[in-house]
This record gives sequence, C-alpha cells and structure tokens, in this order.
Amino acid sequence: MERKLVVITGYGPGLGEALKHRYQQSGYTVVGVARRGGDYQADTTRAEEVSAVFETIREEHGSPEIVIHNVATLSRGSFNDISAEEFEATWRASTLSAFNVAQTVLPSMERNHKGTLIFTGATASVKGGKGFSPFSSAKFALRGLAQSLAREYQPSGVHIAHVVLDGIIWSDVSLKRFPNLKIENALIPKDIAEAYFQLSQQPRSTWSHEIDLRPYSESF
Amino acid sequence: MERKLVVITGYGPGLGEALKHRYQQSGYTVVGVARRGGDYQADTTRAEEVSAVFETIREEHGSPEIVIHNVATLSRGSFNDISAEEFEATWRASTLSAFNVAQTVLPSMERNHKGTLIFTGATASVKGGKGFSPFSSAKFALRGLAQSLAREYQPSGVHIAHVVLDGIIWSDVSLKRFPNLKIENALIPKDIAEAYFQLSQQPRSTWSHEIDLRPYSESF
Amino acid sequence: MERKLVVITGYGPGLGEALKHRYQQSGYTVVGVARRGGDYQADTTRAEEVSAVFETIREEHGSPEIVIHNVATLSRGSFNDISAEEFEATWRASTLSAFNVAQTVLPSMERNHKGTLIFTGATASVKGGKGFSPFSSAKFALRGLAQSLAREYQPSGVHIAHVVLDGIIWSDVSLKRFPNLKIENALIPKDIAEAYFQLSQQPRSTWSHEIDLRPYSESF
Amino acid sequence: MERKLVVITGYGPGLGEALKHRYQQSGYTVVGVARRGGDYQADTTRAEEVSAVFETIREEHGSPEIVIHNVATLSRGSFNDISAEEFEATWRASTLSAFNVAQTVLPSMERNHKGTLIFTGATASVKGGKGFSPFSSAKFALRGLAQSLAREYQPSGVHIAHVVLDGIIWSDVSLKRFPNLKIENALIPKDIAEAYFQLSQQPRSTWSHEIDLRPYSESF
Repeated sequence: MERKLVVITGYGPGLGEALKHRYQQSGYTVVGVARRGGDYQADTTRAEEVSAVFETIREEHGSPEIVIHNVATLSRGSFNDISAEEFEATWRASTLSAFNVAQTVLPSMERNHKGTLIFTGATASVKGGKGFSPFSSAKFALRGLAQSLAREYQPSGVHIAHVVLDGIIWSDVSLKRFPNLKIENALIPKDIAEAYFQLSQQPRSTWSHEIDLRPYSESF
Repeated sequence: MERKLVVITGYGPGLGEALKHRYQQSGYTVVGVARRGGDYQADTTRAEEVSAVFETIREEHGSPEIVIHNVATLSRGSFNDISAEEFEATWRASTLSAFNVAQTVLPSMERNHKGTLIFTGATASVKGGKGFSPFSSAKFALRGLAQSLAREYQPSGVHIAHVVLDGIIWSDVSLKRFPNLKIENALIPKDIAEAYFQLSQQPRSTWSHEIDLRPYSESF
Repeated sequence: MERKLVVITGYGPGLGEALKHRYQQSGYTVVGVARRGGDYQADTTRAEEVSAVFETIREEHGSPEIVIHNVATLSRGSFNDISAEEFEATWRASTLSAFNVAQTVLPSMERNHKGTLIFTGATASVKGGKGFSPFSSAKFALRGLAQSLAREYQPSGVHIAHVVLDGIIWSDVSLKRFPNLKIENALIPKDIAEAYFQLSQQPRSTWSHEIDLRPYSESF
Repeated sequence: MERKLVVITGYGPGLGEALKHRYQQSGYTVVGVARRGGDYQADTTRAEEVSAVFETIREEHGSPEIVIHNVATLSRGSFNDISAEEFEATWRASTLSAFNVAQTVLPSMERNHKGTLIFTGATASVKGGKGFSPFSSAKFALRGLAQSLAREYQPSGVHIAHVVLDGIIWSDVSLKRFPNLKIENALIPKDIAEAYFQLSQQPRSTWSHEIDLRPYSESF
C-alpha cells in the first residue's frame, strides 16, 4: 500500500520541520522543498524549477495529496528606503512562488477531485501596516490568489486554505530579533503544525477557507 | 476523577446532538440547555433563567470548561413585511442570548484562566443580504460581541471563538425548506461537530478566533 | 416651488447642527428629530413614535428626500460590569432606532424610486474592542442592517449609505472626556457634514455604500 | 499665481479624460501620463521612466498636489491557462506601477505635509473571484500597498486613498465586451471623476481611506 504524500514548499527548520513530524506521525510520506536544504532543491520563484522538482517528486513518490506553501520573507522599513527591486523580490518570494506551486499541483488534484493546498499568511495579509508596504502588498496578493483559487477549484473537490499567522513564530531567528520574546507569547511550531494537519483532514462537507492562529496574549 | 464539562446552549437535534456525541466520545460530560427538551430547560433570552440554569448545572456537574452557544433563529422576508417585534425577537434569540450566556460563564473561566466559549455564526454574519435584515443585523451583532469578548478575555486565558457556517445544515428541517438539497452540498452536523471539537482543543499558543466552514460545492 | 426636505434623526448640537447648516446652505429644508430639543420630538427606539413624528413632518413639509440617522450612545466598561439592561439599551438606541426610521421612510422612497438614507457608524462598527462589547455589538448590528437594506433597496433607486466615523468628534462633550484632545486630531462637525452632503448628492451611477472618515493623525 | 497641479498616471480616454475635465473646471492644471498618448509618455512599470517623467513634469509645472494612479489591466481566464508571465505582467501593471509612482511623488508631498495620492481599485480588490486570479491577486496587492502607505504617510499630512470601482465603466471598450450593457447599469466616467474630485478636496479632519462606487443596480 502506498503512503499518502505531503509536499512542503519553503521547507525549513521551525514550522517546516514541525509540519513534517506531524504528518509523519500520522503515516504520511513528507518531502520538503527548499532553495537549500530540504529533501529537494528548487527556487520556487522560478516556474521551470517548480515544475521540474514536482516532476521528480512524482516519479519517486507519486502525486502529492497535500501541499503546504510556506515561503515567508519578511521585509520592512520606511517606504522611502525600499527599492523597486526589494518590493519585487518580496512579491516573488511570497506570491509568485505560490502561483508557481499552484500551477504545478492543481491540475492533477483537479483531475482526481481530491487534494489540499494550504498557503501561509500573516497579520499583514489582512491589514497593511506602517513600514510593511512590500510585505503587506505581497501577502494581500497571496490572499487574493488563495480566494480566487478556492472559488475556482473547490467545486472540483480540491480544498484551498489560507492560514493567517497573527503573531511571532517561536524560533532562534525570532529570538535574535526580539530578545525579550517569551515562548508563552509566541506561536509554537508544533501547535501551528497541528492546526494545519486538522485543516487538511476536514471532510468536504466542512472546509475552512481561512483561519487565523494567534497566541492567547496577542492583541489584535 | 471528575470529567470535564461541556455545556451546549440552544441544544437541539442536528448540530446539538452531534456536538454531544463528539465530546462524549472523548470523555467529556455534556449537557444541553434548551427552551424545551435538552437536559436542562431555560430561555436563554432571559438573564435570570440563564443564571439559574448554570447555577444548577454547577451544583450537579461543576463549572463548564467549554460552552457552545448555538441558538439560531432564521428570519427572512421583505423589509417592509418585518415588524419591529420580529426584528427585536431575532436579536434577542441570536445576540442577547449570547450576551446572557457569556455573562454567566465568563467570570469563573476568567478566574481559572481557562475555558472556551464558541459562538455559531452564519453567512449573514459577514454579509448583509437582501431579505435578511433581522438575521444579518443580529448575526453581525453577535460577531461584534464575540470580537470584543476575545479582545477582553483572551489575555486572561479564555478562548473566544466565532464559527461562520456558510451553507445549509443537513437536517429534516432543511429538507422541508429545500426539497432538492443533496447531502453532498450541505454542512453535515457530525463534521461541524468535529471542527468545533478541534477548535476547543487548540493550545493557547494557536487560538483561532474565527473560522469559516462551508461545503466544497458552496459558492462564496 | 417646494424645497427638498432633509430629516435628521438623533438631532443634536455638534454633528446635527452642522448637517442642518450644510443642507440649508444648499437650499434644503432641514428638520431635526430628537427626544428633547430639535424641531420635532420622538423617541426613535419606539416604532409608534417614529411613525407619528414622520406623519406630522409629512403633513407640514412633505416626504423627506434625505434622511440621516445619527443616534449615538457610547457605552463602555468591563464586560462583567455591564448589565443586560445596558446591553439592550445600547442596541435599542443604535440599532432598533435605525430599524424604526428605515421602516417609516423607505416605503415612500421605494415608491418614488428616489431617496437617500444615511446611517452613522463608528470604529466599533468594523472592529470589536475590549471594553466596548455593547457598543461594538450594536454598531455591528447597524452595519449588518445597512448592508441588507442597500442590497434590498438600491435596485429600486434608493441609496443606503453607512459612514464609519473613525475618531473623536470635536465637541464640548469630547473635551470633557478627553481634556487633552486637540482640534487638529478630531473629526470636525462641519467637515463631517460636508462629506455627508457629498454622499447624498452622488448620482446613481456611482453610489458609495460605505465610506470611512478619520482625522489625518488617527492611527488605524 | 501658479495653478495647482494634478497628475494622472495611466491616463486614457474614459476615466482619465473625465478626471482631466473635472479638475480643469476647478482651475487645476492637469497632465496625463501614459505609455502612448497623454501629455507625457512613460511606462509606469519601470521605476526609472516614472522618475524621469515626474522630473520633467516638475520642471515644467512644479510639484503635483494630487496624483491619481489609474492603471487597469483586466486579465481573466481559467487558472490553468494563465502563464507565469501573464500573472507577473498583471502585477507589474497594477501594483508595481503604483509602487513606482508612490516612490516618486511621496517624498516631496511628505516634505510639504500636503498632497493626495489616489489609487483605483476594483471589485477584485476585496473579493478574489473565480477566473480572476491574476487580477484579484494584483488588486489585493495594490490595496495592501495603499493601506500601508496611508498608515505611514497620513500622519505627515499626505492623504492616501483607495477607490473600489464595483461595476463596469461605461466606454466603447466595455460595450464591445458587453454588448447588452446599458448606461444606467454602468459607472459613468464623469460621475467617478466627481467622486475622485471630492475625495481629493477632503479637509484633513475627515479623510476617507477607502470608498466604494457602484451603480445603483449592481448586486454586491
């Protein structure tokens, strides 16, 4: 019997690893795709690389049943100090990468009338913030894409979901940036992973398109 | 060892029953409160009845850890044909009842820094529709209440959630109203119950305040 | 030649007066309805009083072309300290009053395929706040009502609009509450009045259903 | 005495022309920037061309007080049929162009504590639709940018607004695409222009960040 496949694009330590563990616990095969590291390497901002890496994955593991796109490039600063290149790079990392992954995985999901595609959003996906213009714009763009795909693909049996992570993910990187961060005020990767797992197990009678996840102490 | 308690207000066949079964499966004691039927009777639009029934429940079962408020009175029709009495009754059933339940159960949850209160919303909670003025107004009001309570109580460790049910719940009542409804296009009570259950189990690192649930075939 | 009529319900000093002046400047007859003061007295939370006062206004001035409902009762405090009576009173003042006015004025507007009904909202209409549960719930309810009415009446040629006032209105009352408030950080009544006036003059090719108004310095 | 300057980027027949007439009526100097036609030529998706064209405009007319960015490239089709190139081109036209214009005009507005920048949105800015993935994603991105800029620049006295055009603009192009379109169901350019004009005249006590404009008969 073949095991069901989960692909995590934008795989890395922290949320990526936690997702891998959670799905493996339930018997899934899980492969991570990243620019460096991960099980397979690809720059998801390049359509042809995404297409090629999924081709390889299909040959080795079959078609993925669940795909989680989890690329996050935070960019912040005064609007005046942001170059057009940085604005574009933020969009490529957050939005174009999601487009490329969706284009590659949705056709077979649509044919099978089955599959789940989850995108990771942020506070900035629903509220533009001072000093966050590239990131908010890119994350709004991702949300608009996710909504369009949900309306286009869900009637075919393919679940499209968008998760708004409203808080800081607990990690070494976060601790360097926010030295006073306490774990009780942070989003803990294994808890996020559990929420993603549950989302991907929803029967098609009750699909969530958008859920928010935030620490109890987070103001919003 | 005492078992943990779930109270369902607005208990009835369909979603109420399904919730009861789901929580019992995981070892919870579950009691339903309804005007008629249920395990305890109270008109939740009346503050003193809500207060009294929870007093009785506390004496017999202890303090609830999870409370699900699930009162739904659909009201529709041309605006001209709706009386002020009907407009008010819809608000009392959907919103004032939720206020009464919240007032009764939140103080002990706040003291314990623990507890979950879930409100059931609808499509009309986020989009005012033609012919739905009393219902939309009341459901918007419930959502405003839920958001305010989340911002007030979550930092104390009490989880407040609002579920947007975007579709028709599969039931005999729905079938009478929509004779052509197919089960595959409806929200199935046991699936909704599973989503509520998961919501109430979220660790405080990753609380959802609002989730939507809709059948895969529902346009939105 | 008869002059066109504007009725302001919830009339009072501040915004009410400013609206009166603005419309009078453009040749409108303007009458204010209030519980006390104003040109006509009625408690807008009581359907029969609203009906009676508009009957009198019609006899003396004809049917209103523009109705502005501007009843605002701020209520705030810890959720625990709010009684069911206060929660209900806030809803009656903000929402039921709007229902009553809408029921009374919309039938003739619908018959004439002409007319404008404007509701005054607040920050709390779109975001529930800690300590603002009665007010947010009531203002959300008003917004839900306004959306439903827009979708029901606009195709008949009746414009329904909802204005989100996101800030503090400059007034003696505000100064008592916020002694450090500066006029440059406040919503100035005559400027709000100008925005309402423009809204009510929109040709039916370009109707706004919802606009926000905030001081330049207001964070949001 | 120098006359105040309005610059319209994405200038063209229809809305561009109507805006030009409206502002000229009130004594403004108005210049249109377009790839072809207009008073000045620039491809607004290229930062250096935007920068150069505004340099020329400044030398000849001074700094603009009002800038209206009005680039609209509708793109639609099944998600499967859209290439990464088209997805990117839609974002460049709608979003990157807005970024480039904002970067060029905001510094002098910020120094002067004065100025208005208006972005043109669409239904797709707030709701991702089936078959509209590139357009919705790009328009969401524009809205996220506009919100971020409002929060960053408004406290300096620069007004940032986003207009949601919810309907079809009356034009020869629209008529070709929708041969049964009637003028009474369309957004009429001169009426849109009036709404933009009013928006740009708001005193800083009452700035709207977002307004919607739709024909009375449009369902929403």
